[in-house]
Amino acid sequence: MARNSSHATGLRVQLPVLCFFLQAAIIILFSFFVRYNHETDSALWHQSNHSDMDNDFYFRYPSFQDVHTMIFIGFGFLMTFLQRYGFSSIGFNFLLSAFSLQWSTLVQGFLHSFHGGKIYIGVERVLYRSHLDKSKHREGSVYHSDLFAMIGTIFLWIFWPSFNSAPTNTGDGQHRTALNTYYSLGASTLSTFAFSALLSRGGKLDMVHIQNAALAGGVVVGTSGEMMITPFGALIAGFLAGTISTLGYKFLMPILESKFKVQDTCGVHNLHGMPGVLGALLGALVAGLATHQTYGDGLENVFPLIAEGHRTATSQAVYQLFGLFVTLLLASLGGGVGGLLLRLPCLSSPPDSQCYEDQIYWEVPLEHEDEVQGHLRSEDTETQA
Amino acid sequence: MARNSSHATGLRVQLPVLCFFLQAAIIILFSFFVRYNHETDSALWHQSNHSDMDNDFYFRYPSFQDVHTMIFIGFGFLMTFLQRYGFSSIGFNFLLSAFSLQWSTLVQGFLHSFHGGKIYIGVERVLYRSHLDKSKHREGSVYHSDLFAMIGTIFLWIFWPSFNSAPTNTGDGQHRTALNTYYSLGASTLSTFAFSALLSRGGKLDMVHIQNAALAGGVVVGTSGEMMITPFGALIAGFLAGTISTLGYKFLMPILESKFKVQDTCGVHNLHGMPGVLGALLGALVAGLATHQTYGDGLENVFPLIAEGHRTATSQAVYQLFGLFVTLLLASLGGGVGGLLLRLPCLSSPPDSQCYEDQIYWEVPLEHEDEVQGHLRSEDTETQA
Amino acid sequence: MARNSSHATGLRVQLPVLCFFLQAAIIILFSFFVRYNHETDSALWHQSNHSDMDNDFYFRYPSFQDVHTMIFIGFGFLMTFLQRYGFSSIGFNFLLSAFSLQWSTLVQGFLHSFHGGKIYIGVERVLYRSHLDKSKHREGSVYHSDLFAMIGTIFLWIFWPSFNSAPTNTGDGQHRTALNTYYSLGASTLSTFAFSALLSRGGKLDMVHIQNAALAGGVVVGTSGEMMITPFGALIAGFLAGTISTLGYKFLMPILESKFKVQDTCGVHNLHGMPGVLGALLGALVAGLATHQTYGDGLENVFPLIAEGHRTATSQAVYQLFGLFVTLLLASLGGGVGGLLLRLPCLSSPPDSQCYEDQIYWEVPLEHEDEVQGHLRSEDTETQA
Repeated sequence: MARNSSHATGLRVQLPVLCFFLQAAIIILFSFFVRYNHETDSALWHQSNHSDMDNDFYFRYPSFQDVHTMIFIGFGFLMTFLQRYGFSSIGFNFLLSAFSLQWSTLVQGFLHSFHGGKIYIGVERVLYRSHLDKSKHREGSVYHSDLFAMIGTIFLWIFWPSFNSAPTNTGDGQHRTALNTYYSLGASTLSTFAFSALLSRGGKLDMVHIQNAALAGGVVVGTSGEMMITPFGALIAGFLAGTISTLGYKFLMPILESKFKVQDTCGVHNLHGMPGVLGALLGALVAGLATHQTYGDGLENVFPLIAEGHRTATSQAVYQLFGLFVTLLLASLGGGVGGLLLRLPCLSSPPDSQCYEDQIYWEVPLEHEDEVQGHLRSEDTETQA
Repeated sequence: MARNSSHATGLRVQLPVLCFFLQAAIIILFSFFVRYNHETDSALWHQSNHSDMDNDFYFRYPSFQDVHTMIFIGFGFLMTFLQRYGFSSIGFNFLLSAFSLQWSTLVQGFLHSFHGGKIYIGVERVLYRSHLDKSKHREGSVYHSDLFAMIGTIFLWIFWPSFNSAPTNTGDGQHRTALNTYYSLGASTLSTFAFSALLSRGGKLDMVHIQNAALAGGVVVGTSGEMMITPFGALIAGFLAGTISTLGYKFLMPILESKFKVQDTCGVHNLHGMPGVLGALLGALVAGLATHQTYGDGLENVFPLIAEGHRTATSQAVYQLFGLFVTLLLASLGGGVGGLLLRLPCLSSPPDSQCYEDQIYWEVPLEHEDEVQGHLRSEDTETQA
Repeated sequence: MARNSSHATGLRVQLPVLCFFLQAAIIILFSFFVRYNHETDSALWHQSNHSDMDNDFYFRYPSFQDVHTMIFIGFGFLMTFLQRYGFSSIGFNFLLSAFSLQWSTLVQGFLHSFHGGKIYIGVERVLYRSHLDKSKHREGSVYHSDLFAMIGTIFLWIFWPSFNSAPTNTGDGQHRTALNTYYSLGASTLSTFAFSALLSRGGKLDMVHIQNAALAGGVVVGTSGEMMITPFGALIAGFLAGTISTLGYKFLMPILESKFKVQDTCGVHNLHGMPGVLGALLGALVAGLATHQTYGDGLENVFPLIAEGHRTATSQAVYQLFGLFVTLLLASLGGGVGGLLLRLPCLSSPPDSQCYEDQIYWEVPLEHEDEVQGHLRSEDTETQA
């Protein structure tokens, strides 16, 4: 109980301090750096040329709202599958997304490029806990928590085409990205159902596969969605992505856990990792095949450096492979540092026996709390014994 | 148990084979027949006239996404009301919708017309099981499953105007369809609540009515939504639709089940059947009254053959009545053949005692599985006795 | 039991009569007053100037649908947090919204202004029940009901920018309103998490705060969202709104209940009341600072009377403060009269011991009903004793 209450004290101090500090920092930075642009400023609006309005991401309003729907609802509910972690899943995703919305305005100002999910996706895990088996009984789902998670999956599925097409140019590029993503998602859904039934005990479908691997088609065309991969190319890419993702959940994940001591509750490696790498390789391949003939005047939008003669298609492909390498390097470093930081004693992360448990961060309604208290008490007894 | 495991083996082989075969067939057909059109192809984009962009259904992007929201979320969650069939409801709707998305591209190419839900709607039931009373205890809802189903109902309600206006011409036709659908849905909701309270035991509202009959207003203006039915005409149509649908759930359904041996778990006949026929009759009536004076230049869009003088309004009405007759004929034939096919032994449909039960198709979380196993065991004992 | 059944009879008669009467009245009023406008009428469409299309609220179609998503899903699910009131929350919100949709068309015709939520928001509570402690055990949530409520919260959060920008002019005003609302919501979410952890027992987050106070940022810029409040001004306003709302739930609400006998189950005063008043004061302040220099030609859209020289900025501010006073007066009067009307015996409101209970209005699935019947029976025994 001592550990429990010291942990609570930690949250009481750290979360407010972090929120206050970050919000104050953002307000100060906003006051110096952020201004309404000519589309939004009342005084500038009527003097400006409106024709480039659609090129500004922040004012392609439906896409902006679509991406929020995907991130807040999609990711928020996807992780409610854990039977006693629904509050934390939705709540902390909510907090993080609200913060990212503000932060991304600043980052975007400097980088002039935006990809809604990146900030979010960079946050989780490279962490292992040696006594995690004590929380193992909570790493499962219950019937209704799986239905809540399907709210997340289906919103992600429907809005992934908007998400992939958000950073593209309007016009043909956006159409092509949306269509390729739809076809790829369609094919990954079919391959996921097929392999889930084929590989599971007694031919039964596994909700974890459906909730996750069916989305791999959206990930795999994340790089190449705007390129001329052809509709049947998108179907093949999606089918392969659904396949490797389902195989990952079935065969790779148990090995990662038992041999490499990697805890991957949401299967991020299976859904975002492997299909993402496959997508990057696909993107490099298709970039290497880009010609003026295939893209016409549109080459200027998709590959401006090739169109202007500063780069050959082959060197564009090499650059993209190098980009993949840099991404993997940064992800490993960032994940490693993040994992070490989370182990700092001052962050008072929960003890191994209380993982996946809302009750340490949230006021939980009584009937549930009772049940949990029972568990915790019996675990404490075990620990002392 | 023998029956159970042979059934599982069936799913293990058939579902993957079906998915693989269909996906391969679609990929091959796509590679031969499907190309980006001039709105989507990078090379063609800048040479084309953009002005007709909005007329292409696939690129009226918001509508396309709206229809997906309606089908994936609306229909997926609507059927979660069954207490132990939530996984199957959402999961199989998901699979079918993902397949339909691809298939419809092909069909559309040949037919040059598209109505998102048609493919989906053609799939279910004309089936009766003589020992279905053994699954009767699972044909009900539980408290939370009814709340999940309301997610479906409300998404269907909100997106039905988009759905009805998707195949119409842009401009006034689309506005009129959306508005008429909203008004009709509003009136059917009020009549559903009124009749549900009026007819139920002790004046209590019945969730089944609210979840379904409130949507009848969207069905009833499916044919006539684009026509000049006037706002108060839409209100009257919706009110009637909600009324006959609620009466259907209350009085017709028990008769269909006991006398005609028709099992209609979702009440498709009450929500889609009767209001659909009413809507077709309404459409024929309004078509018969169409004049140049009422429609102005817009007559060209709504009734091109009348506008061009190839058909009188009366003969248009007769054609539409004939269309209703053909639809009912095809539906009866299609449903009959579908029902016979589903009874083929090689399809290993579940035994009567295991209907409405996720556990025969899905890995179900433990606490629930235990409960179910108990039921199955006691049922097996009964069957043997 | 006598009371219970007389109450049921009340619903059986009153709800249908009310629905029939209101629907008939609306149909008659529609038949006299409502016509398709030139954007929707087939005969008028081709003769009209299309350029002002976007100024008509009913045909800014995405916004219209967004506002419905917010009201039907957002408010509908927000109130499912009550463990045994989910059917009533979603169902009655559904009925009321379907009615409002029709009613608002009429009201709008007279007032030429529309604000989607106003009608809805004017409906609830100023009511106290002296024996409400007998229903107290049902005023809590259960684990899954809190997750359902989060569906409501997150949809409200995502669609609030659409809601605030719905009545504004298109162009820069709409962009500015959406952006200001997003920033304000982002900041109120951070301050809500911060104060919830800071003030709660053991630093634990409280779901009631997250579900409600996080939305206060949307309320507080309801008046001033279109004005040039600057992005960091929006952040500060949102942060303050989240703070006073969370403090209201924590400290003010228990006082209101014990001292002033005000029952505010949803915390309307904390989410809509105080942040709304703060927002009105902020709006008056910013209006008083409006200059031609800051707004440019846009001043015509935001403050037409100032732009045309009929009013100074200071008198505009005074008018807005007077508007706040009138709103508070009408709200008090309307709430008081509403409260008195609801106490009329002929409306047969439920007895104090059966508040927050679906079972008196709805057919509730069996397993739940059993549980409730147990409660009711033991309560009846208590009451008799």
